[in-house]
Amino acid sequence: MDHPTSFERYRVASDGRFELASIDPRDTGSLDKAVAQERLARTTERIAELQERLSAQDRWAVLLIFQGMDASGKDGTIKQVFASVDPASCQVFAFKAPSSEELDHDFLWRAARALPERGRIGIFNRSYYEEIVTVRIHPEFLEKQRLPPRCAGEKIWDERLEDIDGFERYLSRNGVLVRKFFLHVSKDEQKRRFLERIDEPDKNWKFNEGDVAERARWDDYQHRWSKAIARSSSDHAPWFAVPADKKWFTRLVVAEAVVAGLEELELDFPRVEGPRKQELARAREALEAEK
Amino acid sequence: MDHPTSFERYRVASDGRFELASIDPRDTGSLDKAVAQERLARTTERIAELQERLSAQDRWAVLLIFQGMDASGKDGTIKQVFASVDPASCQVFAFKAPSSEELDHDFLWRAARALPERGRIGIFNRSYYEEIVTVRIHPEFLEKQRLPPRCAGEKIWDERLEDIDGFERYLSRNGVLVRKFFLHVSKDEQKRRFLERIDEPDKNWKFNEGDVAERARWDDYQHRWSKAIARSSSDHAPWFAVPADKKWFTRLVVAEAVVAGLEELELDFPRVEGPRKQELARAREALEAEK
Repeated sequence: MDHPTSFERYRVASDGRFELASIDPRDTGSLDKAVAQERLARTTERIAELQERLSAQDRWAVLLIFQGMDASGKDGTIKQVFASVDPASCQVFAFKAPSSEELDHDFLWRAARALPERGRIGIFNRSYYEEIVTVRIHPEFLEKQRLPPRCAGEKIWDERLEDIDGFERYLSRNGVLVRKFFLHVSKDEQKRRFLERIDEPDKNWKFNEGDVAERARWDDYQHRWSKAIARSSSDHAPWFAVPADKKWFTRLVVAEAVVAGLEELELDFPRVEGPRKQELARAREALEAEK
Repeated sequence: MDHPTSFERYRVASDGRFELASIDPRDTGSLDKAVAQERLARTTERIAELQERLSAQDRWAVLLIFQGMDASGKDGTIKQVFASVDPASCQVFAFKAPSSEELDHDFLWRAARALPERGRIGIFNRSYYEEIVTVRIHPEFLEKQRLPPRCAGEKIWDERLEDIDGFERYLSRNGVLVRKFFLHVSKDEQKRRFLERIDEPDKNWKFNEGDVAERARWDDYQHRWSKAIARSSSDHAPWFAVPADKKWFTRLVVAEAVVAGLEELELDFPRVEGPRKQELARAREALEAEK
């Protein structure tokens, strides 16, 4: 099987200089939609195969983080890319407004609790990155966290970034592969998708009036996300900034990046040797001796 | 009320040069037992008062870590020092051999889940420090963690120490006061306490045959604890190496260090002002208008 590497173009360098504006949301890598869809089908099958090995080997865990503006396609991408994976080995957590119990703890607490076990893929639909973007744009959200005054100055944004990097480095040292995806949709495409949600009765449930208010802060969000991504893309936990105006292309880039990540782990079914092999032989004899 | 500061003598400097051998386990700070007990009674009352403010203010959390060789008095110290504190605001977690679910996660996972909420005191009876001491002395415990081979080399001890420091710094930035106590008992006193557990029927339940085997590795443990404490005592999470042959003295040192930590937080009952004060006035009127 060939392993197309076009997704590599969207990996964010760890030199701290990334800008979302450098990515064209309409980019489709000069691919034809039909070709891309056929490639996606093969890639999602490959993810399922690798996931089976991940599970059998039971040493690595995988953490995939999805971020993006509203209607950038996070839910649909997760659904499609992991369509073939055994759901018992794949856990999706969607982080919404924090509960009062969550607010009573440190900001990484709810994420740390939801970390995947060895042998599993954990998917975060939104994550602790909201803590340095959304919470910074909305000071009232920070107020709700009830930090002691001496912990709450302007310095917290740099501290949080440093602590997030430390957390991800810690995870990578402890057998968790971390990959992060920002689905980069254009403002025009978001408008089109919002209108679709308003006009199509089956999509009404996805629309939330608050989303339009957030849209008014589009530039703030683009600025904060650019900075957050630039400063937190690392070798141990790289970001991919993925064009998201064409869903079929977004999904292909994500799927290929996931396959490449899994392949770095050299996953294999554990081979049975020595005493354990003799145990298996004895088990066979016992089964065959049954009347 | 006076605030004796003798506990300061047992604070471990953050210069990385600490050795347990520099602390005499029999030390009692030239104090008379009766005087110490009277001072302890006042100090535990003071902890209860400060805890009430911690709870009312609901911004800070407190994490207290207790370590020490078997029979060093961890359980008894926790029981006595926090005797007057409202149990609803004080959570003790004793970390024993990890469960299979815990082994399936990163080594800080079970501690992170057990972190105290704002307004509470969380007490760890043993902690993630065992991961760089006991697990290092017992390679079979590390094997059970099923780390991928590339994450499991000699480098992990330094990495774990660095990650623990990062974790504690993160906590202190997020409104958690961290204080760590190593109860330093002598080998002779441990023997005396073990014999007591064997000879007194009411204490038999505290004795575990495995404890004697661990005693054979006394020097390994002293060496590893010295290194671990030396390298992880910091301004944001200091260690106290507390003489532990005389229980009454151990408890006083711990209690006074806890009071000093709480007093650094400038805890106060929140004062009601402005609109909220008017709300209270209206509530009074409504209550008084009741037939």
